[in-house]
Amino acid sequence: MNFLEERIVKDGAVREGNILKVDSFLNHQLDIKLFNEIGREFKRRFAGLPVTKIMTIEASGIAIAAITAQYFNVPVLFAKKSKTVNLDGDLLTTTVDSFTHKTTNTVTISKKFISPDDHVLLLDDFLACGNAMLGLTDLVHKAGASVTGIAIAIEKGFQDGGRILREKGYKLESLAIVDDMDPQTGKITFRHQD
Amino acid sequence: MNFLEERIVKDGAVREGNILKVDSFLNHQLDIKLFNEIGREFKRRFAGLPVTKIMTIEASGIAIAAITAQYFNVPVLFAKKSKTVNLDGDLLTTTVDSFTHKTTNTVTISKKFISPDDHVLLLDDFLACGNAMLGLTDLVHKAGASVTGIAIAIEKGFQDGGRILREKGYKLESLAIVDDMDPQTGKITFRHQD
Repeated sequence: MNFLEERIVKDGAVREGNILKVDSFLNHQLDIKLFNEIGREFKRRFAGLPVTKIMTIEASGIAIAAITAQYFNVPVLFAKKSKTVNLDGDLLTTTVDSFTHKTTNTVTISKKFISPDDHVLLLDDFLACGNAMLGLTDLVHKAGASVTGIAIAIEKGFQDGGRILREKGYKLESLAIVDDMDPQTGKITFRHQD
Repeated sequence: MNFLEERIVKDGAVREGNILKVDSFLNHQLDIKLFNEIGREFKRRFAGLPVTKIMTIEASGIAIAAITAQYFNVPVLFAKKSKTVNLDGDLLTTTVDSFTHKTTNTVTISKKFISPDDHVLLLDDFLACGNAMLGLTDLVHKAGASVTGIAIAIEKGFQDGGRILREKGYKLESLAIVDDMDPQTGKITFRHQD
């Protein structure tokens, strides 16, 4: 097991409804030392590839994106879920269904912050159905930029997002892939990764 | 002018409706090097005071909180605006009106992540009416913990939040306090700080 898988086993909890609770370190309380380990590992996995910007979607991916950006020495751009008076000018929008929140969001970025020259690393804390990442790839393509890869902390391997994104040809790196988890016993089975 | 004031003058823009647009570096695209300068300066301003946790509210405060937490060597806790299946157990809630989004949110944290022993540094990108920070102080007090101080990147000094929080006795440190801004000329006047 790698450092993240070990932490999930130690501090995560499995709940009914395919919920993996990691709120003590990943998406409510944030262990910033762990996030630095995550950032370093993403840098290792995408070493040598062009990355000019890290893009995520609010809210729980933002902190991991910010810490990871230190290892790539690039800015972060986070897509916004709500309409806000803080964005104006040319906007790029797409639609994302949220598994976690049972809602559909219009997701927005300002066109001026992403250009055809950009090589974008997409990043999020969780990958499940893949809707958020598909939405972000759509925004990058609408901007004429390219997707260098997708960096995920925890992938739910028993849902379709990972398969869909890999079949589309994206370089998807998930630090922990949960292939099975049992709310009765709490047992979590990770996919073997080299 | 300090480094943040200089950046606001260089890359910010004043819009009608008391909007200060800093989306190119602070709350949409994120300049992580700048955030490290912000984090170091917060550490300097709260040096010697007890801080066991940094608390913010989703979404735009999260990245600054994560970077700043590296200088305090503490975890971050971010209050959630939406109902989510990721939180369960004992919750603490309060209500916050958003100036930016023109909405009222029920804001939630898990009680288990904040104890009476905690000394909490509240942090956000903007302070305007103060509702978000008043909500967070309410959550900290409900948990029986103490507020060490409030760390803000940009305070709109012509709105009431800063005055209200200082009158309540909180140590409020805003790196840039905008006392006046003119959408016609673009001129921004900062409050003098030692």
